[in-house]
Amino acid sequence: MASTKPFLLYTGPTPNGHKVSIYLEELKALYPNVDYDVERIDISTNRQKEPWFIALNPNGRIPVLVDRSRDNFVIFETAAILLYLAQHYDKDKKFFFDAETNEASEVLQWIFWAHGGVGPMQGQANHFNRAAPEDIPYAKKRYIDETKRLYGVLEIRLANRDWLVGPGRGKISIADLNVIPWVRIHTYAGIDSIDEFPNVKAWLERTLERPAVQAGIAVPK
Amino acid sequence: MASTKPFLLYTGPTPNGHKVSIYLEELKALYPNVDYDVERIDISTNRQKEPWFIALNPNGRIPVLVDRSRDNFVIFETAAILLYLAQHYDKDKKFFFDAETNEASEVLQWIFWAHGGVGPMQGQANHFNRAAPEDIPYAKKRYIDETKRLYGVLEIRLANRDWLVGPGRGKISIADLNVIPWVRIHTYAGIDSIDEFPNVKAWLERTLERPAVQAGIAVPK
Repeated sequence: MASTKPFLLYTGPTPNGHKVSIYLEELKALYPNVDYDVERIDISTNRQKEPWFIALNPNGRIPVLVDRSRDNFVIFETAAILLYLAQHYDKDKKFFFDAETNEASEVLQWIFWAHGGVGPMQGQANHFNRAAPEDIPYAKKRYIDETKRLYGVLEIRLANRDWLVGPGRGKISIADLNVIPWVRIHTYAGIDSIDEFPNVKAWLERTLERPAVQAGIAVPK
Repeated sequence: MASTKPFLLYTGPTPNGHKVSIYLEELKALYPNVDYDVERIDISTNRQKEPWFIALNPNGRIPVLVDRSRDNFVIFETAAILLYLAQHYDKDKKFFFDAETNEASEVLQWIFWAHGGVGPMQGQANHFNRAAPEDIPYAKKRYIDETKRLYGVLEIRLANRDWLVGPGRGKISIADLNVIPWVRIHTYAGIDSIDEFPNVKAWLERTLERPAVQAGIAVPK
């Protein structure tokens, strides 16, 4: 039986998957037209490299979102999915800002900063600390150090604010949702504690208290 | 004497610097209100880690753009700069698409794909092939292989089109400008030839023929 939910999310239990499921859960709590089916992709079997999936995302990575209500438009790359959802479905700009504002640019700045920094560098830390077939102390140290340097940048930004972007102490936005799922699993990358980054730690805890965030990181079941 | 040019670009002769100077040159050729001063940052002396620069970009990286005509608004992260310029200065959307279109999302998808993939992975290839104090064959191979895999994704995308996004064979956009400067210096990363990617090679050559691209990669002087 065909589903009638407007979105289909191909995903897995990874930080990149969780960025999207968290925002979908936040939107679902706000807007009656947002709901989604989930198809779990087992990346350990390389299903994301099969031709049917490459036709959706030539890069062969999860997550991928299909928007059934807009002629099955396909979106890949986590941050592009967040911005697509913000553009088309977050009508009250609860997690974004009007496109012509400086805040909209600041959201993009922090999203790109995380997308080119925290994600790939923490991902390399994961690889050399957990998956690489050789023990390479230089590479382990390089990527843990770089990830911690990046957390230090977050620490500076959060020194006098609750959220990365917005006037005053800021408002929660996709800039936060885009990087929180990586910071959440810092121990996986070999960073035992983030006690040296108290602002980052408080921001992480503040975010994880949100019911939609808890629901999002439980996807896929 | 204070300059009257509307933008100030802090940059260096790197792929990330060139992304921005290329788009500024393209815009300058189209719009009389776009022009920019350049301040060269010598990253070998770590000037980008000095407090005055960290106040502009807490991540301590070039390029940074200051928009004097919008109250000295500061933008960091190359792709965020491209999108800022598209939003505020490319009024005829010559290198972008209207925000609500699927093409606008496709531009973002390819920009994020490059920003989280080609840039950081080719950057790691550069590091292990040229800068690392130890010879680590595993890491060299890992990042050259990943960069080539990513070029292969471009090759698939460009199989039946001239540019990454747009109807038919596409139109040049910031999606192309965002990644071309990396592909241009593939030999620097240890990739001797891109002959195995003929569509990518033709796309690179097509782009490098443009006068604004040639002017952009000559910045800073």
